[in-house]
Amino acid sequence: MESSVSLLDQTAVKELVDTHIRYYCEERKNQAKPIGERYVVLWDAIQSLVLAGGKRLRPYMVVNTYFAYAKNPDITTILPAAVAQELLHAAMLMHDDIIDKDLIRYGVKNIAGQYRDIYAPLINDEQEKNHLSLSAAILAGDMLLSDAHRLLKSVNLPAELVIQADEILSNGIFEVIGGELLDSEVAMYPVGTITAETIAKYKTASYSFVSPLTMGAVLAGASEKEIHLLTQLSEHLGIGYQLRDDILGMFGDSAKTGKSTSTDIIEGKRTMLVEAFDRLANPVQKQRFYELFHNPKASIAELQEVRTLIETAGAKADIERTIFELEDKAFIIVDQLAISEEHKQAFYELLRTSLKRDI
Amino acid sequence: MESSVSLLDQTAVKELVDTHIRYYCEERKNQAKPIGERYVVLWDAIQSLVLAGGKRLRPYMVVNTYFAYAKNPDITTILPAAVAQELLHAAMLMHDDIIDKDLIRYGVKNIAGQYRDIYAPLINDEQEKNHLSLSAAILAGDMLLSDAHRLLKSVNLPAELVIQADEILSNGIFEVIGGELLDSEVAMYPVGTITAETIAKYKTASYSFVSPLTMGAVLAGASEKEIHLLTQLSEHLGIGYQLRDDILGMFGDSAKTGKSTSTDIIEGKRTMLVEAFDRLANPVQKQRFYELFHNPKASIAELQEVRTLIETAGAKADIERTIFELEDKAFIIVDQLAISEEHKQAFYELLRTSLKRDI
Repeated sequence: MESSVSLLDQTAVKELVDTHIRYYCEERKNQAKPIGERYVVLWDAIQSLVLAGGKRLRPYMVVNTYFAYAKNPDITTILPAAVAQELLHAAMLMHDDIIDKDLIRYGVKNIAGQYRDIYAPLINDEQEKNHLSLSAAILAGDMLLSDAHRLLKSVNLPAELVIQADEILSNGIFEVIGGELLDSEVAMYPVGTITAETIAKYKTASYSFVSPLTMGAVLAGASEKEIHLLTQLSEHLGIGYQLRDDILGMFGDSAKTGKSTSTDIIEGKRTMLVEAFDRLANPVQKQRFYELFHNPKASIAELQEVRTLIETAGAKADIERTIFELEDKAFIIVDQLAISEEHKQAFYELLRTSLKRDI
Repeated sequence: MESSVSLLDQTAVKELVDTHIRYYCEERKNQAKPIGERYVVLWDAIQSLVLAGGKRLRPYMVVNTYFAYAKNPDITTILPAAVAQELLHAAMLMHDDIIDKDLIRYGVKNIAGQYRDIYAPLINDEQEKNHLSLSAAILAGDMLLSDAHRLLKSVNLPAELVIQADEILSNGIFEVIGGELLDSEVAMYPVGTITAETIAKYKTASYSFVSPLTMGAVLAGASEKEIHLLTQLSEHLGIGYQLRDDILGMFGDSAKTGKSTSTDIIEGKRTMLVEAFDRLANPVQKQRFYELFHNPKASIAELQEVRTLIETAGAKADIERTIFELEDKAFIIVDQLAISEEHKQAFYELLRTSLKRDI
């Protein structure tokens, strides 16, 4: 196929994105130098963290959608928009880690984790050291949040399109902040007040799927009808992605996912899987489940019992069925898109890697 | 003067800005509703805090500079850019308060302060309540930081100009984040490693003066020569503003400024005033000064002794002289600007209210 040069796979996009991030951070470090060597250190911390991991799924979706619709697509043109999505994601992770009190991300120390080491020889007071490490992480996240907007603005396309794309970015941020807030408050209210699906919709689907897919299409000048279809598609994809995450969080191979399958159970995380269990389980199953769920003293055998209860009650199968239905709906939408067969195949592949993945 | 309709004073700008902020927050609350009632609560907290105080000096500078250079200036056109500067300022204050562990701003409870009350009936654990209140404040600041970019994008002027103005906003953010970081780290390093002037330049002058003045001019299509002059002008103005702040923080009328004249002394804040004292004082004066400075046990009489030492060593007079010199340099620059006499008068007034103020 002669047009296959226009199709980039996820690995190729990741390489381009990582190179661009490296270049961007180096440039920022040069600009930080006159302000102070310590500001360069913050940018070093940002650079090493952002490059330590991540699948670059969001940039891939921007690039892929742009290539599907643009008349003369060019990777150089769309790359800053793709990287902007990754900077936003990194900013959100940095602030999410503060809220969740995490010090590790991508298997390495996050900004606060790195700064605990940086400040260790400088501050004796442990509490003050930790506070200022979190302060550095707040500032790092602020910086990338603003620079996501900035980088998007450097896209070499008609300014009106760029401003439209920036409104998509802003809208994604508005929704993910709402999702973050709900997620941080969910445990304060009676079960069911804030559902896991609402959180998935706003904390994951919106900025991680709707925003990249529609941004790529808008920058390619796609029609409103296509944008509308892509919005529906990405909502299905986003919810399905989170459902798969919930299953992997309890039944995955932690050697592959890098995540323990016990954390969600011990912390009592009310995922959509747990909500399905609540709908489907009988009173006896429920009673046993809630003796073991959110119980830091649960043994390995008891954690396994929780998983078995989820399966026996039919909750796992129910979620698998929902993922299958979402995938089905998404396939039907992809079929309707006014793009080449080759690009449809790329979308099908995206559906598979998002919904059928084991990592 | 027939052109006086084009001149708005600070009070008039404040009213317009506050109305716009109120309208903007109401719109955001409507958009937050489908995400969740609790997200509306966050926007309520944002709205009440932002409208609780502030002189709106930054918006005034945007408007005033725009009117000085634009051919057919129109307040409706420039207002979103002016409000964007205020949203950015509010975002920075919200995150600055977290870093400084403050719960009060403009004499009322800030976001974390408000959320302690909101969460009080919902969370028993005091530490968790405080942590989640800070989390809400992180999210509120993120929201306004992103919305500053968003609002600027709604300015109804050629998209190229708007993108140029957004680069000014981004640059201000890059510098203020650096300034914030240096300020949070200054106490970790030997005295003199990070100077108060460097912090004033990046934490105050850049985003509070350079950014508003140059943004107004860029949006009006002013020449590069004018932008260059305005940059110099606003650097003098920004440093002078901070110097005046330092003096008011020790010698001001706290009934007028709303700030205690003891806090800086008790907390051992190394302002440019203290740096001047270090340069000018004799060993005896220095020894006594550092017995009392940064000493939480200092009596009212001893705090007064600190002020007297600052005056006797000539530090206060030295800083007053520097402010005078900066004002002088600024006046000379204003005189060179290619704007009407009437607008020059407005700049002179800005210099007076920034550098000679007692509030």
